[in-house]
Amino acid sequence: MKTKALASPSTGQPLAPFEFESGELAPEQVDIDVEYCGVCHSDLSMLNNEWQMTQYPFVPGHEIVGKIRSVGDRVKHLTPGQTVGLGWFSQSCMTCEQCVSGNHNLCAAGEGTIVGRHGGFASSVRCHSGWAIPIPETVDPVSAGPMFCGGLTVFNPIIQNNISPTNHVGVVGIGGLGHMALRFLKSWGCEVTAFSTTPDKESEARELGAHNFLNGKDASIFEKYAGSMDMILVTVNVDLNWDAYLGLLKPNGKLHLVGAANQVTAAVFPLIIGQKSIGGSPAGSPGTTAQMLKFAGRHGIQPMIEKFPMSKANEAFEHLAAGKARYRIVLENDL
Amino acid sequence: MKTKALASPSTGQPLAPFEFESGELAPEQVDIDVEYCGVCHSDLSMLNNEWQMTQYPFVPGHEIVGKIRSVGDRVKHLTPGQTVGLGWFSQSCMTCEQCVSGNHNLCAAGEGTIVGRHGGFASSVRCHSGWAIPIPETVDPVSAGPMFCGGLTVFNPIIQNNISPTNHVGVVGIGGLGHMALRFLKSWGCEVTAFSTTPDKESEARELGAHNFLNGKDASIFEKYAGSMDMILVTVNVDLNWDAYLGLLKPNGKLHLVGAANQVTAAVFPLIIGQKSIGGSPAGSPGTTAQMLKFAGRHGIQPMIEKFPMSKANEAFEHLAAGKARYRIVLENDL
Repeated sequence: MKTKALASPSTGQPLAPFEFESGELAPEQVDIDVEYCGVCHSDLSMLNNEWQMTQYPFVPGHEIVGKIRSVGDRVKHLTPGQTVGLGWFSQSCMTCEQCVSGNHNLCAAGEGTIVGRHGGFASSVRCHSGWAIPIPETVDPVSAGPMFCGGLTVFNPIIQNNISPTNHVGVVGIGGLGHMALRFLKSWGCEVTAFSTTPDKESEARELGAHNFLNGKDASIFEKYAGSMDMILVTVNVDLNWDAYLGLLKPNGKLHLVGAANQVTAAVFPLIIGQKSIGGSPAGSPGTTAQMLKFAGRHGIQPMIEKFPMSKANEAFEHLAAGKARYRIVLENDL
Repeated sequence: MKTKALASPSTGQPLAPFEFESGELAPEQVDIDVEYCGVCHSDLSMLNNEWQMTQYPFVPGHEIVGKIRSVGDRVKHLTPGQTVGLGWFSQSCMTCEQCVSGNHNLCAAGEGTIVGRHGGFASSVRCHSGWAIPIPETVDPVSAGPMFCGGLTVFNPIIQNNISPTNHVGVVGIGGLGHMALRFLKSWGCEVTAFSTTPDKESEARELGAHNFLNGKDASIFEKYAGSMDMILVTVNVDLNWDAYLGLLKPNGKLHLVGAANQVTAAVFPLIIGQKSIGGSPAGSPGTTAQMLKFAGRHGIQPMIEKFPMSKANEAFEHLAAGKARYRIVLENDL
């Protein structure tokens, strides 16, 4: 099968039309006709080979919504025509300790949808059937794409850290990930504090679910809100004054990183005395994805998106790189 | 009431006989006639004012076993003559969110037994009745003292991190704390790996419960045991190559610090990909102490101790400072 796509030919180069032959579908795989695909900052990082793992020609796209086109011989739980989503991961071994425990996103053999293979800026995309997650009717497929990477990445820490509706959670960075975190946490019932260095985002952050809006550049907040939060979810990919943010946590609090910052450093004594911790997590498992979709559907949660035709993906990348996306871009397939 | 004690008159000075007047017992307090008192490395750190919070004259001692001498008017659950233990904490507010949730060890108003008040190298010691924990008949009072600080400090992370008997746990540093961790974890049913830079400790570490014995100075272990442990409990108070130890953790693994190292630094990417975390904790709550004592009694777990008369406390400190204690010193009261 010939697949039409957009690919960058080499490091940092713009996307251009590209065709490739998909080859035979394996028994446990499915092909998905791509209808919509979100644009994630990691698509841009990969295009620029920031993580030294990009293979060119590089086809971005890992926030995919589409319809099952065909299923491998052993796939019984999905049928052609069914609407599914696909995120950062496209395959895992399904047999290791992590996979059989429901933590497929921690599988050492996990395959990234845009790592060493072609992603969703394409007419169709292929994946292991276990990672194509049905989208319930309660969820709008047009805007659902960004939930499969950005949304899942901020939903997973809520599950992993057993966040309770009685908790106070901070969200650092109100962008593609952070704005979804505000919506999830508001519906979760938490007290929610947004941290942003862009004061213009305050009213929108409050509409999205924030009870408080703080600017991390204002040193006084670290005294005023000391010891007040149960978790702080860091969605930015820059190194912060980690000790200052740890000081905002209550005893037993969690500083949880999902943005690819460089290094954390923290004084040990306050960690010990406050029984605090610093952790991180990647996207989420198929089970967590399904939980997220049901929760989002019941609460009417969807990403706030801007649409571009997929053929204008380069313009979408420029918009994203300029920090102008409010808050997530979705490409409509016109390839 | 006159109390006989041993006190250091000023920074780093040896202990000398010292008497003080205890004053009136508050309604919720108890006095304990000290029979035994463990010697913890933090007694030495405090004597040397390493943490800039020592008040002199300084009476060390916070691993105390003794008999209730007298109880305040409102104390109904303890009776004179009853054998109890007292550890790092001697008081907490009993009314804050942490105290009412059973996390008294995280109370912001928590009072340390040797911080700004006189500890257990004395004929008697005073505390809030909630922190004097009855020692069950299944536990030997002679050796029980070190469980109230060192033991509790390594038992608490097992509880906090929901360690399961199916887990593989590493213990870094086989000393006063680490040797008790090996015994607890063996009886907990875990696979246990001891890390020590003292090869002579191997056979004893294995007797104490270690299935494996690794030397952290041997760089090859970090490849050989990569991704194999669910928790690594760090009992040493020096800064390690944290990234290397994080690499030994399985996905979802916890690096847990109880030794007062200076700073942790960690690359963020591996934390995120492996959903790992770095945390710490202080001693434990009264509830966790009682759980520990029942568990220790049922499994015959006790610290391995060396006894000194309390009047020879300076010699005990020298023995400890020289790294010769195997593994915990207990002073028998002869004041």
